Amino acid sequence: MSQVADGFRSLSDLFASPEVAAEGIEAPRGTVVYEQGSPATDVFFIHHGQVRLYQVAPNGEARLVEILGPGQWFGCAALSDREGHVTQAVAATQTQLSKVTADRLVEYAAQNPAASAQLIKQLAGGIQSAREEAARLVFQDCNQRLVSAMLRFSDSAAATQQGENVVLHLTHEQLAQAVGAARETISLALTEMRHANVVRTGRNRLIFNREALRQLATSPHGSNGKSHEVEQLA
Amino acid sequence: MSQVADGFRSLSDLFASPEVAAEGIEAPRGTVVYEQGSPATDVFFIHHGQVRLYQVAPNGEARLVEILGPGQWFGCAALSDREGHVTQAVAATQTQLSKVTADRLVEYAAQNPAASAQLIKQLAGGIQSAREEAARLVFQDCNQRLVSAMLRFSDSAAATQQGENVVLHLTHEQLAQAVGAARETISLALTEMRHANVVRTGRNRLIFNREALRQLATSPHGSNGKSHEVEQLA
Repeated sequence: MSQVADGFRSLSDLFASPEVAAEGIEAPRGTVVYEQGSPATDVFFIHHGQVRLYQVAPNGEARLVEILGPGQWFGCAALSDREGHVTQAVAATQTQLSKVTADRLVEYAAQNPAASAQLIKQLAGGIQSAREEAARLVFQDCNQRLVSAMLRFSDSAAATQQGENVVLHLTHEQLAQAVGAARETISLALTEMRHANVVRTGRNRLIFNREALRQLATSPHGSNGKSHEVEQLA
Repeated sequence: MSQVADGFRSLSDLFASPEVAAEGIEAPRGTVVYEQGSPATDVFFIHHGQVRLYQVAPNGEARLVEILGPGQWFGCAALSDREGHVTQAVAATQTQLSKVTADRLVEYAAQNPAASAQLIKQLAGGIQSAREEAARLVFQDCNQRLVSAMLRFSDSAAATQQGENVVLHLTHEQLAQAVGAARETISLALTEMRHANVVRTGRNRLIFNREALRQLATSPHGSNGKSHEVEQLA
């Protein structure tokens, strides 16, 4: 679910099909598409813009789960037997969506084996991604998780390419919410990575070379930002 | 995926169908059904016994992800576009399985809308469960996660009912692997819960009343095992 799969277009067709009769939605930046715990009946497809999925703790603390963009869809709790959404969905920019009831989508998919196979493949991939994320929370330290999150989001709608580098449009606070750490911890780790010339930081953005960061992640020195073997930022 | 859904029988039928031509497997206790990272091509259905899914870190540390029993299935990486399994599957008792290639299962499901709808529903449920587990790892302290894990596994193949109580057949080490904590931490927390009369412990087993534990989880005193408002073990 976190990446646009090859055959994704058939799902795009599914949402565009007149028989599915999706409802178009214009969501200005900041719109809560659905609240966590609200009845999960609809599935949403993104045409333009960016949607972020959060999990919110009883004390208000938030976890950034996914950053989604054009061609991706969300709201899969509606396809399960859960009654409420497990995440909160927020439009991070001006966003254009299609909304379909899960019942209608499943009904239509049942008559379209290719679409159904795509849905199955993407949902199965979603389980793998969510489990890998849980494993990172158990096995990896905060610095390793930070690098994992930066790599993961470098493919997302929050990233743009600038020459050989990725520009990731996230605040330290948002990164902290994705990593499951305090903002101060993330800021400190980014400062170390900046001193090691692996990351440049700007206003609400991080600039880095994906390959250099990947090497940092697999370096035997770990991801403490002090390895001298990594290729530095051009 | 972690619970037997109402309409599950149609998936059981799917695996039993002569057209699917599942291969029967007898797995003695301790059999590794598949290794983490091994090619994900097959999906497995449990007729008898118990299978546990683990995630293993590069340093050998393990996380217990799921405990599955009769009527449940696993190996969903094979349905995704991942090439390798994200978990390791181990038969925890003498286990009887059916094995089907994912391709054949999806092909057959495509011709059986009810089975396909079931697959979609269960996979979507699996994403919710995995995300909720990740949220617990971020938001909950170790004691809260311990109670969550005990409640979750009280519905699993590792649990038996004994009057009003649940007997959970897990070692402290296995619980620690499910909670993502050190064994010593879990043993200490269980000792506190035992002193509070919420849990009894035996050889490789925990005995508790599910409702009392659920009250402990939602008690304003948290799950520090010291609340006096919880209903005690009969």
